[in-house]
Amino acid sequence: MARKRSLDDGPVLRAEILATASRLFYERGYDATSIRDLADTVGISSSTMYHHFANKQDILYAIIVPFMQDFDAAIVPMLRDGTRSPEDRLAQAARLHVEIADDRRPELLTGNPFRNALTPDQLRQTVALQQTYHDAVRDVIVEGCTSGAFATEDVELTTMAILDMLNGVREWFRKDGRLTRDELVARYQRMIARLLHP
Amino acid sequence: MARKRSLDDGPVLRAEILATASRLFYERGYDATSIRDLADTVGISSSTMYHHFANKQDILYAIIVPFMQDFDAAIVPMLRDGTRSPEDRLAQAARLHVEIADDRRPELLTGNPFRNALTPDQLRQTVALQQTYHDAVRDVIVEGCTSGAFATEDVELTTMAILDMLNGVREWFRKDGRLTRDELVARYQRMIARLLHP
Repeated sequence: MARKRSLDDGPVLRAEILATASRLFYERGYDATSIRDLADTVGISSSTMYHHFANKQDILYAIIVPFMQDFDAAIVPMLRDGTRSPEDRLAQAARLHVEIADDRRPELLTGNPFRNALTPDQLRQTVALQQTYHDAVRDVIVEGCTSGAFATEDVELTTMAILDMLNGVREWFRKDGRLTRDELVARYQRMIARLLHP
Repeated sequence: MARKRSLDDGPVLRAEILATASRLFYERGYDATSIRDLADTVGISSSTMYHHFANKQDILYAIIVPFMQDFDAAIVPMLRDGTRSPEDRLAQAARLHVEIADDRRPELLTGNPFRNALTPDQLRQTVALQQTYHDAVRDVIVEGCTSGAFATEDVELTTMAILDMLNGVREWFRKDGRLTRDELVARYQRMIARLLHP
């Protein structure tokens, strides 16, 4: 049997705790996973666990925030790159959105139970990260409407509809299904283009 | 203090258990709500509770299924009514979808934790109810494409995109926001029409 790891393992252990927690929260649900389950699965004592994280809520937060930061870092600067056309930027955002959500599915811990689990401060921070992405998409749509590349009745609702369409994909997309992910992305890009066509 | 209710209260008590469970699951999450919490909130003993439901899973299932049956009963016959145009039927489905989801928000217990909580048989039944609605929407789109009222590159993906757009609304729509629900519905109906315009 593997030795129990201790405090000395530092950042590697921290990363392993987060990866394991992410998987268990995804498979069993956040509320159904205890700190004890988590410690046992990683192979550490509860006290070593508490050295790294004060409580389960802090583990959840430590999973969500880097995911959201990476998501924003991958997409927002591209969306705000004025040297590319709004059409290109939105099509590229659709691709990255679907790909990142699919690749990092277990970290995508959204919905009511998780919102309820965070402190008000933690919730504010995660909402701000989502808002950063939302605003970048909305601003590209505004820019496209101004230049005549796009037309839409209601920029805000169109932004939400596009984000919800893209968020929905991870719930039902199967790698062994009728379409490859690339084919799916291309068709979603064309649906978004139809939605915005002047 | 109110008397503890007993078995004799029958169907009224059953309905009250479900309404309370629906609210507590929505507010605190399914896993975080115990049978004991539920019994205490309703004002009954755990043994009276177990007379009505064998376990928490059965309570969850007893909430989800009537909601889904009502949803299908309100929308599917209308979607399958060949005397109305596909455009009218799809616009009406968009309205009913947003309205029912908004009115009965606490019963809309979807997402991973709930899927994990059901037995395979229960899950099959709820998936079948979702599929009934999905198929009715898809068939209207096929019909509209055949008649020339609609055009779309991929019927299946367009169906999913529309359902995900409509499902997303309940997560962010606020009654005290910029738009009334009727205004929102009208704009969503026009976005869906754009998505399907020949």
